Amino acid sequence: MEFSSKFLENAVSEMSQLPGIGKRTALRLVLHLLRQPESQTLNLAQALQTMRTQIKFCKSCHNISDVDLCEICSNPHRNQELICVVEDVKDVMAIENTSSFKGLYHVLGGKISPMDGIGPHDLNVTSLVEKVKEGKVKELIFALSSTMEGDTTNFYIFKQIQEYAIVTSTIARGISVGDELEYADEITLGRSIINRIPFEASLKS
Amino acid sequence: MEFSSKFLENAVSEMSQLPGIGKRTALRLVLHLLRQPESQTLNLAQALQTMRTQIKFCKSCHNISDVDLCEICSNPHRNQELICVVEDVKDVMAIENTSSFKGLYHVLGGKISPMDGIGPHDLNVTSLVEKVKEGKVKELIFALSSTMEGDTTNFYIFKQIQEYAIVTSTIARGISVGDELEYADEITLGRSIINRIPFEASLKS
Ligand SMILES: [Zn+2]
Ligand SMILES: [Zn+2]
Repeated sequence: MEFSSKFLENAVSEMSQLPGIGKRTALRLVLHLLRQPESQTLNLAQALQTMRTQIKFCKSCHNISDVDLCEICSNPHRNQELICVVEDVKDVMAIENTSSFKGLYHVLGGKISPMDGIGPHDLNVTSLVEKVKEGKVKELIFALSSTMEGDTTNFYIFKQIQEYAIVTSTIARGISVGDELEYADEITLGRSIINRIPFEASLKS
Repeated sequence: MEFSSKFLENAVSEMSQLPGIGKRTALRLVLHLLRQPESQTLNLAQALQTMRTQIKFCKSCHNISDVDLCEICSNPHRNQELICVVEDVKDVMAIENTSSFKGLYHVLGGKISPMDGIGPHDLNVTSLVEKVKEGKVKELIFALSSTMEGDTTNFYIFKQIQEYAIVTSTIARGISVGDELEYADEITLGRSIINRIPFEASLKS
């Protein structure tokens, strides 16, 4: 691509560093900004800069937060003894959107992946094990993605805490509500048969 | 969507103002930036801000430029009497990429569109007519998109300059090189039959 301006070229180049944004899309976005009032670009630039430099992570659950202890961890109406272990911040948001969970979270910041060079020490595992050791936890719910890396991570944490008398569980996997069986993938369908629940229990949920 | 941080929410909100970027995609992009070195976000923010505040438009052709007269207009090896009229900067880049045009451009900055409230005075039409009046132009090539608005704009400009003895042309429309006829839309196919060229001429191109 030939650019008639270094400023334009530089903006397109930085924009196309974002995942899923190619050079063409980046150019389209940048030319769009040029047609909008200057304030839109300045607000975007300022918001990104503030976000990246000012954002904090909760000292207890490692969720993104503007204060030291996040709103969820500091909420006295939430069950402090029930902890849902998730990979990242998006998962907290997804579960919060369901309004079905009233415990706390623990954000690992990823999952163990030897292929990508990510070991347990690159994740927030130690602080989770500490919470369990200190007797603050009654139940841990593993809510990682059901991939080999997710399973490995679950198992690694399980081994670290199995000597302590707490309940551990994983979220149920199965056919999405409203989905036709024939369109489900085999593994999900298989798991949903193995993990079947009593019919009467299903009436209550 | 529930955000645990105002900084995060604000960044996602500004990002999702961009065309084709929904809230979910914006969140994904912003969380990606959080995982990258701080410098990546700061470079992006700076590049956007510099681009929006520093960029200039060529005083002659209205193409984006870092100097008053763009590199194309100031290039003595280009034919100054041949002007290709385009809607916007992307079109200049597209034509430059083909390396098939050695004249100058004139960027209108859009096309006449009464539905969107865009009239001739919102576009760089007057400066184009001035160039023709001053006897600087031998041929104008209309390279606008072949829509009703494009045709209207071509015709409006044509009426303004028809009293001057210059050649006007429009770029050829037809089936893309390598395309199967059966997949072409009817209008394109129709035009490509009407605008057929002598077979011997086609051997040379
Ligand atoms: Zn927290
Ligand atoms: Zn120019």
